[in-house]
Amino acid sequence: MMDLFFKPKSVAVIGASGTPGKLGYVIVKNIADSDFAGKVYPVNPKSDEILGYKVYRSVTDIPGDVDLAVTVLPTPKLTVATVEACAEKGVKAIIVESAGFAEMGGEGKVFQQQITDIAKKNGIRVMGPNCSGIVSRDIVTSIYPITKKVPRGNVVLIGQSGLLAAGMASDIVENESLNIGKVCSIGNKCDVNENDLLEYFGGEDDVEVISMYLETITDGRNLTRIAKRVAAKKPVVFLSGGRTEAGAQAAMSHTGSIASNAKIVEAAVKQTGMIMADDFAELKDFAKVFSTQPLPKGNRIAVITLAGSVGVVVSDLCAKYGLELPKLTSETTEKLKDMFDAPVGNPVDLYFSVTKQGFTKTLETTFPDAFKDPNIDAAVVILAGFEYTREAVQKKIIQKIVREVGKPVVVCMIVGYNKYKNVIMDELGKDLPVFPSLISGVKALSKLCEYGIRRQKLSA
Amino acid sequence: MMDLFFKPKSVAVIGASGTPGKLGYVIVKNIADSDFAGKVYPVNPKSDEILGYKVYRSVTDIPGDVDLAVTVLPTPKLTVATVEACAEKGVKAIIVESAGFAEMGGEGKVFQQQITDIAKKNGIRVMGPNCSGIVSRDIVTSIYPITKKVPRGNVVLIGQSGLLAAGMASDIVENESLNIGKVCSIGNKCDVNENDLLEYFGGEDDVEVISMYLETITDGRNLTRIAKRVAAKKPVVFLSGGRTEAGAQAAMSHTGSIASNAKIVEAAVKQTGMIMADDFAELKDFAKVFSTQPLPKGNRIAVITLAGSVGVVVSDLCAKYGLELPKLTSETTEKLKDMFDAPVGNPVDLYFSVTKQGFTKTLETTFPDAFKDPNIDAAVVILAGFEYTREAVQKKIIQKIVREVGKPVVVCMIVGYNKYKNVIMDELGKDLPVFPSLISGVKALSKLCEYGIRRQKLSA
Repeated sequence: MMDLFFKPKSVAVIGASGTPGKLGYVIVKNIADSDFAGKVYPVNPKSDEILGYKVYRSVTDIPGDVDLAVTVLPTPKLTVATVEACAEKGVKAIIVESAGFAEMGGEGKVFQQQITDIAKKNGIRVMGPNCSGIVSRDIVTSIYPITKKVPRGNVVLIGQSGLLAAGMASDIVENESLNIGKVCSIGNKCDVNENDLLEYFGGEDDVEVISMYLETITDGRNLTRIAKRVAAKKPVVFLSGGRTEAGAQAAMSHTGSIASNAKIVEAAVKQTGMIMADDFAELKDFAKVFSTQPLPKGNRIAVITLAGSVGVVVSDLCAKYGLELPKLTSETTEKLKDMFDAPVGNPVDLYFSVTKQGFTKTLETTFPDAFKDPNIDAAVVILAGFEYTREAVQKKIIQKIVREVGKPVVVCMIVGYNKYKNVIMDELGKDLPVFPSLISGVKALSKLCEYGIRRQKLSA
Repeated sequence: MMDLFFKPKSVAVIGASGTPGKLGYVIVKNIADSDFAGKVYPVNPKSDEILGYKVYRSVTDIPGDVDLAVTVLPTPKLTVATVEACAEKGVKAIIVESAGFAEMGGEGKVFQQQITDIAKKNGIRVMGPNCSGIVSRDIVTSIYPITKKVPRGNVVLIGQSGLLAAGMASDIVENESLNIGKVCSIGNKCDVNENDLLEYFGGEDDVEVISMYLETITDGRNLTRIAKRVAAKKPVVFLSGGRTEAGAQAAMSHTGSIASNAKIVEAAVKQTGMIMADDFAELKDFAKVFSTQPLPKGNRIAVITLAGSVGVVVSDLCAKYGLELPKLTSETTEKLKDMFDAPVGNPVDLYFSVTKQGFTKTLETTFPDAFKDPNIDAAVVILAGFEYTREAVQKKIIQKIVREVGKPVVVCMIVGYNKYKNVIMDELGKDLPVFPSLISGVKALSKLCEYGIRRQKLSA
């Protein structure tokens, strides 16, 4: 059933427009620009052709089957009438992108209930209202113009907020390295909610990580049940907005439903095995770590640094976030001994190897041995924005080692020249998760380890 | 006395070299390239001239007074002999930049003690050993090449780690907007320690914010006493490395002294009014907020956003970090009413004003009124990486409003196109503190408010 939203064979755009800039135009244009190969039926009582597609007066006039209807109409009343018409036509999936419903209170609530009632009576699934549609390679039904090809990616982002999902969509088409391949905005959730989507994406093989922003939880009991099952198979990163009183108050005026309670949410998340994010940046960053890195078997970290002080602060942060820094085995330290000017420990201070044999050689000879050590589950690599770092990154030296060792890694950038830092972050970011601070990288790795350990336990 | 390190009239570089790349060359070159207008005396028994300066065989051969000696010699033994020679010459300030002392243990410790003894006996102040010198507009004595003019800035950065201070120095010359005007590395602290520098910079009018990274605390009782006095006058941001067991172990092998205890450090910091950072990024970022923004009178925040969801998450983060989101006064909401499509609250969701009158007009008409509200002490402004944002930033609209209102602000970037985001961060970053995530911005503002409230109480 949910396939009708994401892989329809035919789509009607009700409220389609031939005027560039209008929402009803943007949707048709987005569909036309996407890889969608099925039938497109713009609906507008006053047009004949939009972007080369024949226009129909009403959804009921469309000759063939309609898998999905996308509506963007000026009034809630018109929307309700359209949902009725869709029911008559036999449409089973509708995305209502207009606002003016429950989030406005009063009459808006009544109109929204009418939509829900019609949907229920006719076995129709409705996404929205007050949402911004779907952005994916297969089809783009967003009200925001998506001017580039949506990249393939194994992460799906579910957002309750239309505007935010739209913003995120601009992020992902601009920045392929996020690995986000689908963005889906569910708005007021009059019918389709987070549980439906978790269940659906849980079963989709091309979705490996689910990232989710919610301001309200529709059905906590079901969420707990479904999330637990899905999170046992694939990582679910969850940003819960409105957890605090201040946040709840803000959410109230935003998507118009009663806010969640911090403690209930946090307890539920912990129990399910979902990964909790505190910021939109974390929602993206954690998803990137999970979608690009293998799961570690434990929380034993090697810290690879070029400055002692950085190793000290990363060690403190690892302790704070529940990561351990074990000693390397005597085999490894023995093996590395001759390549270092000073005793080899963990943090592995490459400085004392760089002074002996240069940066590239150090990376190639010492980093892999430390990383392969059987006491080590994962690594934090700290790089500075200098020319030699950029060279190593452009020669893919770090990327190659990480791939060969096959353990997870996060990279943190520290100090150096912006001109090198930006290039390093862009280049390395295509293959590995790179963070602009130590805190953000260590926190992300701690989430990966926590989840990895949970999965280990589940499979034992 | 400490003036001799930072504003000497004459400087001897002992171990100076004419060979580019050698540390003894870099130091002379750095001094030559800085604004230093006093006498430069390179010392080397085998050279006659380095970079146009006449070279002396020994420090005792120098004809005039020597305010400051910088030594970079191949062995600890030679360094000790040189400190002796400096004593004979009557030098009262020495920076020992070579390593191989207490951080190596054994004999290194003995050599370091010898330096301390000579210094004490002769009333000499010694910075280091195992440090990387000073970077400032007035003079650069760093062993790392500083190829650009050091920007003027009201922040001083004190680092125990040489390499880190060097990295930071590359940051500050590259990136003027950090406002860091001086970086000073104190290494093993055989004599000059954090307390000397806190005291000194506490009294320097051109230093408005002190940022400090330590791995060990030399004299906790004195630090508490001095920091309390200095922090009552100007903000002191403190990153304490080696607070945890893992960090302490890492610090042990790095600067060679017994590590600090997390609880003692944290309690002391709280008591003194210093601002605690957890990452090098925070050390810089907090300093930037303190050095560019006025102190707020309280913790009542206006959240200025363009998307409801972002307002929700920022509200949650504000609650987490002890910031309040009060209602705007009825005068303000009344005044703003007609410019919005929806009720005006806090978070102030500009979206509902943008839809009415566009982004620039919204900024100019609604943002100042909300920000000026007497219920509001400071603001978090969240901007997206879109073209209209860049335009407003380049027209300095936001900068101008903030300056006129005269209250503190932090800006957080969220979603959007990288090409706009980078320009916005660079441009706006020249005038205001801009953060790449919501968490980092809110945390920084919470530190500013905490300190502002403390200062209010102290002055009451």
